[in-house]
Amino acid sequence: MPALYLMELGAIMGVEGECFKVSCRDVTSTIPIIKVDSVLVFGGTQITTHAIAELLERDIPTTFLSSNGRYYGRLASTDTKAVELKVEQYKKLEDNGFRTSFAKACVKGKILNSLYILKNLNRERKIPEVAEGIKRMYAIIGTLEEKDNLESIRGCEGSAAAMYFSIIPLLLKNRFGFSGRNRRPPKDPLNSLLSFIYTLLMYSVYTAVSITGLDPAIGYLHEYTDNRPALPLDLMEEFRALFADQVIIDLINHSMIDEDDFYEGDTEDKPVLINTDLRRKVVERFEKRLSTQVLYKGDNISYRRVLEMQARSLVRYIRTGEPYTPFIQQ
Amino acid sequence: MPALYLMELGAIMGVEGECFKVSCRDVTSTIPIIKVDSVLVFGGTQITTHAIAELLERDIPTTFLSSNGRYYGRLASTDTKAVELKVEQYKKLEDNGFRTSFAKACVKGKILNSLYILKNLNRERKIPEVAEGIKRMYAIIGTLEEKDNLESIRGCEGSAAAMYFSIIPLLLKNRFGFSGRNRRPPKDPLNSLLSFIYTLLMYSVYTAVSITGLDPAIGYLHEYTDNRPALPLDLMEEFRALFADQVIIDLINHSMIDEDDFYEGDTEDKPVLINTDLRRKVVERFEKRLSTQVLYKGDNISYRRVLEMQARSLVRYIRTGEPYTPFIQQ
Repeated sequence: MPALYLMELGAIMGVEGECFKVSCRDVTSTIPIIKVDSVLVFGGTQITTHAIAELLERDIPTTFLSSNGRYYGRLASTDTKAVELKVEQYKKLEDNGFRTSFAKACVKGKILNSLYILKNLNRERKIPEVAEGIKRMYAIIGTLEEKDNLESIRGCEGSAAAMYFSIIPLLLKNRFGFSGRNRRPPKDPLNSLLSFIYTLLMYSVYTAVSITGLDPAIGYLHEYTDNRPALPLDLMEEFRALFADQVIIDLINHSMIDEDDFYEGDTEDKPVLINTDLRRKVVERFEKRLSTQVLYKGDNISYRRVLEMQARSLVRYIRTGEPYTPFIQQ
Repeated sequence: MPALYLMELGAIMGVEGECFKVSCRDVTSTIPIIKVDSVLVFGGTQITTHAIAELLERDIPTTFLSSNGRYYGRLASTDTKAVELKVEQYKKLEDNGFRTSFAKACVKGKILNSLYILKNLNRERKIPEVAEGIKRMYAIIGTLEEKDNLESIRGCEGSAAAMYFSIIPLLLKNRFGFSGRNRRPPKDPLNSLLSFIYTLLMYSVYTAVSITGLDPAIGYLHEYTDNRPALPLDLMEEFRALFADQVIIDLINHSMIDEDDFYEGDTEDKPVLINTDLRRKVVERFEKRLSTQVLYKGDNISYRRVLEMQARSLVRYIRTGEPYTPFIQQ
């Protein structure tokens, strides 16, 4: 149990000895604290200050979200760790060679892993438009190599993403009105699901970044600006297709989602909301995915640990100059 | 009520409409959220996740402490605000002129405000050793002006502090075994009190720093190192005597403290601990002090607001080069 999700309405998490105790109605679960890597506290659940103190003392990343997955904030045991690393991280902002090399790696990883998904989905079906899109995405990777500034690297990322999201609907059993990516707010069920699972992924990467001590505000592909976790956004690019899109596509193609799982919000811009059952299903699948073992540099480790290892690769690049290479699904 | 202290054993803080509701046994207090500037949650008290969400949404600095005032951590709504300012703050680490000018201001403020306390206490009593010490501390300020490196500025700070703490016992009604400053752990009742109230002051300054968006890890007088809130430590220097020492000295000289208020810890290094009654008394006096109005650049504001204004002065120095001047009690 690497991440503990507190999402059942009325659940209370406390501490008893070396365990977290989660009670909900008449059911009590006991989880050894040592097995908990991070905690997500959703709206409508409670956590005792004893548990908060324990989480802070053990430096277990803890995030507070609304029941819909909107980010409120997190517990911070200290803002003052790995300061020397942060100083180096800030200095690299002005190193164009470093920035473009890292940004290219992120974008290349993102496109290659998106291609992995597309090729898998199209293996049997052989849809010509998909095959054509795949070819174009490979061409974008070809042009990426010669880019030497962030603007054009971001351009490649944008073109590849547009191509990818225009092909994806052709490969779905049910499109739920989906014809491409949109957000703020998401305008159809599939975009709502993508936004929700990207939030889960973002906070998993955020947790990995927190562990290294890097400042989440300072990214290299994403410009820093207020209220943007630029570094988790950089690092999650290569994982979006593998850990987020793949989960949603599987749910759809296995007919585990239908129209009844969604409802319209009552705000003026009417986002499409996801009911509790489906949210729980998505969280379970997402967690299962992150717990899956994979071969990484000769060792079998979980995908969740891959997130952390990649964050540590960036630390190494900052400290020693050993270039960052993205994680590519084989 | 600028800071809300949740320290009564068994107290629970929740939200009702636009108010925080603090219940303890049969008593419930209602405090408009808009009136709360910061919250300190001590061990043995509870806070609902609804209240946590509210604190995060409104960006109200919230600190978790043990019942003895040991720091556990805090709520962080976002680590990614005022990023541009942080980038400038990091750059200034390499600007020796900036660093020494700011560090000198902090130390000068500290010594002048310490002198204010000493002179007040010695006005009627006219103890020759105290008068002599005051003279020497003025001499240190004289030498401070010509220092051009951090090491020697820190030297001045150390000499003045040693002198100050060697004189203070002469001005106390009861020395409680106090013969100078010590800590980690504090070895006598008075040192325990100083450590406790410095913690309160530190988190008040930390809060002021958080509001500006500056990174608490990056100070200029104090070198950055892991787990050291270097910037709050820099900024609190000029306030130690006024807001912390003064409160403790008043309590002693008004015979509001006696030996029974302390007990020995059961750890090997045996720190001296403070009982709940006295802790509460110190917190009340400290809060009263911070709520006191003072003339600051032509306006009457509370001392707590002075902390924030001084943090903002540092922001101005970083951004515009307008030199930082310490707050000096007149």
